[in-house]
Amino acid sequence: MEIVRPYLLFLGDVPDSLAAKTALGIVDWRPEWCLGQLRLPGCKADAGIPDMSIAEAKAAGVRTMIVGAVNAGGVLPDHWVATIVEALDAGLDVASGLHSRLADNPAIRDAARRTGAALHDVRHSSERFATGKGTKRPGMRLLTVGTDCSVGKKYTALALEKEMRAAGFDADFRATGQTGVFISGRGVAIDAVVADFISGAVEWIAPAADPSHWDLVEGQGSLFHPSFAGVSLGLLHGAQPDAFVVCHEPTRTHMRGVKHPLPSIREVIDLTVACGKLTNPAIRCVGIAINTASLGNDEARDVLARTTAEYDLPAVDPIRTGVAPIVAKISSLFGSSG
Amino acid sequence: MEIVRPYLLFLGDVPDSLAAKTALGIVDWRPEWCLGQLRLPGCKADAGIPDMSIAEAKAAGVRTMIVGAVNAGGVLPDHWVATIVEALDAGLDVASGLHSRLADNPAIRDAARRTGAALHDVRHSSERFATGKGTKRPGMRLLTVGTDCSVGKKYTALALEKEMRAAGFDADFRATGQTGVFISGRGVAIDAVVADFISGAVEWIAPAADPSHWDLVEGQGSLFHPSFAGVSLGLLHGAQPDAFVVCHEPTRTHMRGVKHPLPSIREVIDLTVACGKLTNPAIRCVGIAINTASLGNDEARDVLARTTAEYDLPAVDPIRTGVAPIVAKISSLFGSSG
Repeated sequence: MEIVRPYLLFLGDVPDSLAAKTALGIVDWRPEWCLGQLRLPGCKADAGIPDMSIAEAKAAGVRTMIVGAVNAGGVLPDHWVATIVEALDAGLDVASGLHSRLADNPAIRDAARRTGAALHDVRHSSERFATGKGTKRPGMRLLTVGTDCSVGKKYTALALEKEMRAAGFDADFRATGQTGVFISGRGVAIDAVVADFISGAVEWIAPAADPSHWDLVEGQGSLFHPSFAGVSLGLLHGAQPDAFVVCHEPTRTHMRGVKHPLPSIREVIDLTVACGKLTNPAIRCVGIAINTASLGNDEARDVLARTTAEYDLPAVDPIRTGVAPIVAKISSLFGSSG
Repeated sequence: MEIVRPYLLFLGDVPDSLAAKTALGIVDWRPEWCLGQLRLPGCKADAGIPDMSIAEAKAAGVRTMIVGAVNAGGVLPDHWVATIVEALDAGLDVASGLHSRLADNPAIRDAARRTGAALHDVRHSSERFATGKGTKRPGMRLLTVGTDCSVGKKYTALALEKEMRAAGFDADFRATGQTGVFISGRGVAIDAVVADFISGAVEWIAPAADPSHWDLVEGQGSLFHPSFAGVSLGLLHGAQPDAFVVCHEPTRTHMRGVKHPLPSIREVIDLTVACGKLTNPAIRCVGIAINTASLGNDEARDVLARTTAEYDLPAVDPIRTGVAPIVAKISSLFGSSG
């Protein structure tokens, strides 16, 4: 799946920014790919880029309209269909992060057939994967792992991509979730792959590369999350990372959606090394990324200093402090840019 | 998915017993469910039960014809279709373990529509699962785990079911693979489930039960297999076993399909406990099942005695020695039958 750029972001008429977080994430990380947004009357979200009609987007060079918002339930509202059909008829591809498939709507399916446009459903994988082989591939890889879901694994991988590129590294973010796929234009929502092919799909996402190239692989879930640990383990084995960063949210008391307490950062490091060495015996932790958004400045500084001391590893907040100390650690351990 | 019994086993015209191993496995464990076999001219497999036409099977009370053989590639040969359509027209359901879906064949789909019969593709799950919750459910559970794929996990779970029932336990085999689903009449091929729902599907397979009831859950893969460990971990978390048995094949030098060496039994015990305690802190190993088929009598006896001594746990070969020592261990640890 390769989503052609640039994008028009379709926000529908969602009631708040949270419902448009996919679109907002794309603009955050790839503003240069997003020429405009299309909002229906009543839309309360705003990606902060020019409003455009489909005709204007087409004239500006847009190639794909991204359905970058979700209504409750993740299904496609009937009153969004006309806009999607209009985009297809104008010659645009359409990519969606909804649970329901675009082609399951007859009007959309017919329009795509008529125009020959591509429909991308990034929550569904049409790619046929092999099972994972576990054989070491050339190229360097870093995986972000977590003490829980939704603790900043995607953000950290993207921040590392930006910082490493600025430092001269040849580095690419590798997407394993839907927003990440839109941000990289390629990838697979790994949690939607058939279970037998989790590690095989990750081997496809982060293939053999130049020995000095770094893949920055977006992690999913947590080895300690009772709902999703299988996905996290297949991802770890498929990514065969040389390095990993543990992501953590210090004020969270329970893992997302279940009653289990969070594991400690130490437990995550130890189990990630114990399991990860199966496909990369040299795996090691190179840093800790802490989301301190809910802490004051002093408290945040304390938490980061304490964590740095406790683990003898750079502990950063990718938003508040940036990830430069982790990139410095990578340079010192593995050598600097190619 | 509930497959109604009794069965007629369709063996097609496969060239050897290996290609009919699903059918042979069903007859081994559920002879009372298998009224007959249907073989096409040239079939070299034999389930050792009466040959029957579809009319004879119908008259004998058969409810479902099982496509219990595979040709190379796992697809449905064209010359098997007429027999399947004949079975549907006679009012039988049809269940298949092939990779291709029965309903993808137009003649089969039309016949099923015409007769209202059920088509079961056990390699594909039509059930909608929730994500796993990880909450402790009442009832006792045992999971068979392995040092590799194909080391006797299904056989061991079925042997334990038989032995525990004979000892007065209320115990049920729970299937997680295709042959197991035919043997239990219910279950899910867990490796065919979407990755996000592995542990949730297992929570459905082995639901809350009477506190003294034992689910004997068929394991899949290995936590140390780089292709399938994600499936194994989701299965472990969903099964939340009180007890587990490690299955092992002592002459195997590499894990199936990859270049990795086998882990030791000790490594499997330690990682299974480390990960399994997330959903059941009381998890413990209760025995070791070793497939000694390729060893002589003396050598087999030595391996079992040495393993028993090394781990201070009953080590058995389910075929050569039976699993009674493991059932005795379960009785001593958890109390005997209800």
